[in-house]
Amino acid sequence: MTGSRAVKHSFTLKELSRLLDVPVQGDDTISVDGLATLKRAGPGTLSFLSNPRYAHQLAGCRASALILHPDLASSVTVPCLLSRAPYVTYARASQLFSRLTDDSADQAHEPLIHASAVVSATARLGRDVSVGPQAVIESGAVIGDGSRIGAGSVIGRDSQVGNDVVIYPNVTLYHGVHLGDRCIIHAGTVIGADGFGFAFDGQRSVKIAQLGSVSIGCDVEIGAGSCVDRGALDDTVIEEGVKIDNQVQIGHNCVVGAHTVICGCSALAGSTLVGRYCVIGGGVGITGHLSICDKVTISAMSMVSQSINKPGLYSSGTLLQESSQWKRNAVTLSKLSELSRNFKSLEKRLQHGDTTVPASAPGKSAT
Amino acid sequence: MTGSRAVKHSFTLKELSRLLDVPVQGDDTISVDGLATLKRAGPGTLSFLSNPRYAHQLAGCRASALILHPDLASSVTVPCLLSRAPYVTYARASQLFSRLTDDSADQAHEPLIHASAVVSATARLGRDVSVGPQAVIESGAVIGDGSRIGAGSVIGRDSQVGNDVVIYPNVTLYHGVHLGDRCIIHAGTVIGADGFGFAFDGQRSVKIAQLGSVSIGCDVEIGAGSCVDRGALDDTVIEEGVKIDNQVQIGHNCVVGAHTVICGCSALAGSTLVGRYCVIGGGVGITGHLSICDKVTISAMSMVSQSINKPGLYSSGTLLQESSQWKRNAVTLSKLSELSRNFKSLEKRLQHGDTTVPASAPGKSAT
Amino acid sequence: MTGSRAVKHSFTLKELSRLLDVPVQGDDTISVDGLATLKRAGPGTLSFLSNPRYAHQLAGCRASALILHPDLASSVTVPCLLSRAPYVTYARASQLFSRLTDDSADQAHEPLIHASAVVSATARLGRDVSVGPQAVIESGAVIGDGSRIGAGSVIGRDSQVGNDVVIYPNVTLYHGVHLGDRCIIHAGTVIGADGFGFAFDGQRSVKIAQLGSVSIGCDVEIGAGSCVDRGALDDTVIEEGVKIDNQVQIGHNCVVGAHTVICGCSALAGSTLVGRYCVIGGGVGITGHLSICDKVTISAMSMVSQSINKPGLYSSGTLLQESSQWKRNAVTLSKLSELSRNFKSLEKRLQHGDTTVPASAPGKSAT
Repeated sequence: MTGSRAVKHSFTLKELSRLLDVPVQGDDTISVDGLATLKRAGPGTLSFLSNPRYAHQLAGCRASALILHPDLASSVTVPCLLSRAPYVTYARASQLFSRLTDDSADQAHEPLIHASAVVSATARLGRDVSVGPQAVIESGAVIGDGSRIGAGSVIGRDSQVGNDVVIYPNVTLYHGVHLGDRCIIHAGTVIGADGFGFAFDGQRSVKIAQLGSVSIGCDVEIGAGSCVDRGALDDTVIEEGVKIDNQVQIGHNCVVGAHTVICGCSALAGSTLVGRYCVIGGGVGITGHLSICDKVTISAMSMVSQSINKPGLYSSGTLLQESSQWKRNAVTLSKLSELSRNFKSLEKRLQHGDTTVPASAPGKSAT
Repeated sequence: MTGSRAVKHSFTLKELSRLLDVPVQGDDTISVDGLATLKRAGPGTLSFLSNPRYAHQLAGCRASALILHPDLASSVTVPCLLSRAPYVTYARASQLFSRLTDDSADQAHEPLIHASAVVSATARLGRDVSVGPQAVIESGAVIGDGSRIGAGSVIGRDSQVGNDVVIYPNVTLYHGVHLGDRCIIHAGTVIGADGFGFAFDGQRSVKIAQLGSVSIGCDVEIGAGSCVDRGALDDTVIEEGVKIDNQVQIGHNCVVGAHTVICGCSALAGSTLVGRYCVIGGGVGITGHLSICDKVTISAMSMVSQSINKPGLYSSGTLLQESSQWKRNAVTLSKLSELSRNFKSLEKRLQHGDTTVPASAPGKSAT
Repeated sequence: MTGSRAVKHSFTLKELSRLLDVPVQGDDTISVDGLATLKRAGPGTLSFLSNPRYAHQLAGCRASALILHPDLASSVTVPCLLSRAPYVTYARASQLFSRLTDDSADQAHEPLIHASAVVSATARLGRDVSVGPQAVIESGAVIGDGSRIGAGSVIGRDSQVGNDVVIYPNVTLYHGVHLGDRCIIHAGTVIGADGFGFAFDGQRSVKIAQLGSVSIGCDVEIGAGSCVDRGALDDTVIEEGVKIDNQVQIGHNCVVGAHTVICGCSALAGSTLVGRYCVIGGGVGITGHLSICDKVTISAMSMVSQSINKPGLYSSGTLLQESSQWKRNAVTLSKLSELSRNFKSLEKRLQHGDTTVPASAPGKSAT
C-alpha cells in the first residue's frame, strides 16, 4: 500500500484483442491509455457501448477505439473490439487498465511485512504476502500466498485467509473465520462478530455465546462497512462468487447461495437461507428463518417476511408522492380493510336487488 | 487476543447441573464437549429443545444429553438437564462452552498491555486490564478492572470504561464517553461522534457543536458497525441491560430505557425516548423527538413517526408481491384517497335512494 | 488527541456580543461558562429559545443569560443576546463553548506527528498538521495546513486532504481521494472504496475495476460509519457545504449538490444526481441513475424510484398501526387494484341505471 505510483503506460488494440479474447475491426496498432464513457471519452481512450439506450452518443464520441457489439460495427468508423457481450468485455478491460495505475507492481520493492505490523509468532504467512502498517495478525492465523492485508486491519486468532485475497484497511476478522481464495474485503467491514442472540429470563437478556464461525467461499467480494456475523452453533456461510455491497448486514447462521448479489444497506436477519443467483436490491430487509429459492430478484427497499419458493421479481413498498397527497393516501390506507368491507357489503346488497342502502358502520375517523 | 488456543475439555452433566442450577435426569457422569442443534448434534454433544416446533427432531437426535423442559422428560431416553426455561439454560450453557475455546484463560500468560499499544501517561488502567496491539488510550481515560481493549481500538480522552468490559478491535470511543461494567462493544462501532446538528442561516449549514456526551449503563452490548452519537447539550443515554445489534444508529440525546432490545440496521433520530423492555425489530426507523412507552414491540422495517403511549405490537409497511402485481397495487394506492371519496359519495347517494349515479370526478390517471 | 484537558473558563456577554455579532440587552459584564437547554439551565449558563413551542419554559428558566429573538426581549428580565436568528446564534455560540473544553489549544504542546504514526517519506504535510497515534499516511498523500488525522486513520496513496480538515479515528481514505478545506470526517467512515460494479457473464459476476475517484468540496461534514464509493470511470462528487450524517451510503458516480443535507442511514445508489439545498431525511433510499432537482425535501424512510424535477416535499411509506390492524390493511392492500376495478365496474353499471349488479369476479382470497 505504500508503493509509489507505477509508470503509466498504454495498450495497443492488438494487445487488448489478445488479452480480452475478442477480434479487432480496423487498425489494431492504435494505442489507448485509459477507459472512458462515450460522453467523456477523448483521443487516446477506449470507450464502450453496452446499453443500446446510449447508441445515439456514438455519433459525437471522440474515443480512439470502442468496445462494440458486432451488429453495430458497421455504424462506426473508429477501430473496434467486437464483443457479443460488450459490458463483460468492458469489465475485463477495466481490470487491465486498473493495473496501469495500481501500485501492486511496486509492492515487490517495498518491505512486504511493514515494520509496524504486529504478526504473531504462531501465525503462518504464505509466499508474497503483504501486511500493511499497523495491521495485526493474531495467533494461529493463516494467510495464503499473494494475499494483502491492509493497514490497520486485524486478522483474528486461528482465522484462515485464502490465496490472493485483498483485505483493505481497518477490516476486522474475528477468531476462526474462513475466507476463500481471491476474496476482496473492503475497509471497515467486520466478519465474525457475535450473532445477536439472547434468551430473556423475564428480567434481563441472557447472552447466548456464539460458538459457530463464518465460512466464506472463493471469489467473494464484500463492500465497506458491512458485517457478517458468526453463527450461534453452526457457521454462517457465504458461498463462492457472492458479491455484497457496502453496509450490508448478514445475521448469524444465514446461508447465501453461490453467485448471489446483495446491494447496499440490505440486511438478512438470522438463519435465513438465500438461494444461488439471486439479486437482492439495496435497502432490502429479509426477516429471520426464511428460505428464498434460487434466481429470485427483490427490488430495492422491499420487506421480505415470508419465504419465496418461485423464481421471479418481487417488490414491496409504496410510491413516492408529494407529501400532502401521500398523507391523504396513507391515512386512507390505515382504514383500508374497513373500506373494502363496506364496499363488499354494498356490492352484496346491490346484487340482491336491495337499492335501499343503510349507512355503513362508522369507522374511526382519520387523524 | 494473541493467546494460543486453550486446551479443549469437557463438562460432566453433574458439573453442568451445578453450574447451571438445574437437576439432571439420568446418568450424570456423562461428559459433553460441545453444544449443537438437535439436527446436527452428534455423540459427545449437548443439545436442547426450546421451541416445541422442533419437538419432532428429538426422535432422531444423536446428542449425548439434552436440555429439556420437565414436561417432555418422559419422551426421551438420553440423560437430560431439566429446565423450565430451556432456552435460558441453553444460553447459560453456551457461555460455559464458550470459555472452553476462548483465549481468556491464556491472557494471563501474555503481556497484558501490548508493546505496540499507545497508552497516555495520564490514563488510568485498573487491574488485569488488557490492551491489544495498535490500540490507543488517550489522556485522562480510565479503564476498569478486568476490561479488554481490542486491537486498533481508540479510547478517547477522559472516557471512562467500567469493569470487565470487552471492547473488540477497531472500535472508537470519542472523548468523555462513559461505559458501565460488563459492556460488550463489537468491532467498528463508534460511540460519541458528533450528533447531526446544524442551523441553516439561509446560505449554509452552521455546525452546532455537540457539547454533551454518551452515557451507557452496565451490561449493555452493542454490535458491530453501530453508532451512538454524543448529545448536543445533555448526554445521549443507553440504560442498563440494553442490547443493540449491528449497524444501529442512535441519534443525539436519545434515551433508550433499560433492557430494551434493538435489532440490526434500526435507527433512532435525535431526542427520541424509548422505554424499558421494548423490542425494536430490524431496519426500523424512528423519527426524532418522539416518546415510545415501555414494553412496545415494533416489527421489522416499520416507520415510526408518532409517539406511542400504549404497550403492544406495532407495524407498518406493505407485503411483498410479484413485482407486476405490486406495481398495479402501488399505482392504485397512490390514488387511494380519491377512490375512498368516490366510494363514500356513491354510498351516500344510494342511501338517499338515488340510483342514478353520475360519473365520479376524474382523478389523475395512473402512470 | 492526547493533550490534557484545557483549563475551563468563561465568556462575558460583552465578549459574546462581539464574537457573535449580536447586541446585548441588560448587564453585559455577566459571565457564562456553559450552554444549556431552557429546562436544564442553571446559574452561570447561557440558554436560548429558537422554537416558539418552548416559550412557556422561559418562565422557570434559571439561566444567567439567554439568546432570544428581539420580539421576545420584553418578556424576560435576565440579560439577553438579541438575535433575529437565535438558532444560528446558538450554533455559533456552541462552537465557542466547544473550544473551552477542546484539546486543540493543547495540541501545540504535544508532538504533532505521533511517534507511532507511519508517514510515507513521499507524503507532504503542511504546517501544523497533527497525525494521531497508529495513523498511516501513504505515499504521495498531501495533507493541508492545520489538518488533524485521527488515531488509526489511513490516508491512501496520492490522496489530497485540504487545510483545517479534521479526520477522526479509524477513518479510511482509499487512494487518490480529494477532500476540500475544513471538512470533518467522523470515525469509521470509508471514502473511496470500490463502487459496486459487476458484469454478469452468464455464470459469474466479472468485477468492473473502479477507475474514478471521489472528490469532496470544502466545508463538507460526513458522520460516522458512512461510505462514499469511488467512481467507475468518472469521480463521485460531493459539492461544498454538504452535510452527511452517520451510516449513509453514497454509490459510485453520484453527484450531491452544494449545501444538501443527508440524514442518517440514507443511501444513494449509483449515478444518481441530487441537487443543491436538498434535505434527504433519515433512512431514505434513492435508486440509481435518477436526477433530483434543487430544493427537494424527502421525508424519512421514503423510497425514491423516479426522478424529481419539481422542488417540494415528498414522502412514501405507510403509517404505523397496531399489528393486527396493520395486517388486515396490508392484506387488503395486496388486492387493492382488484378492489378498485370492482368499484369502478359497479360505479359504471349504476351510471347506466343498471341496479342489478352481478357478483364481482372472485379474487385470490387473503392469506
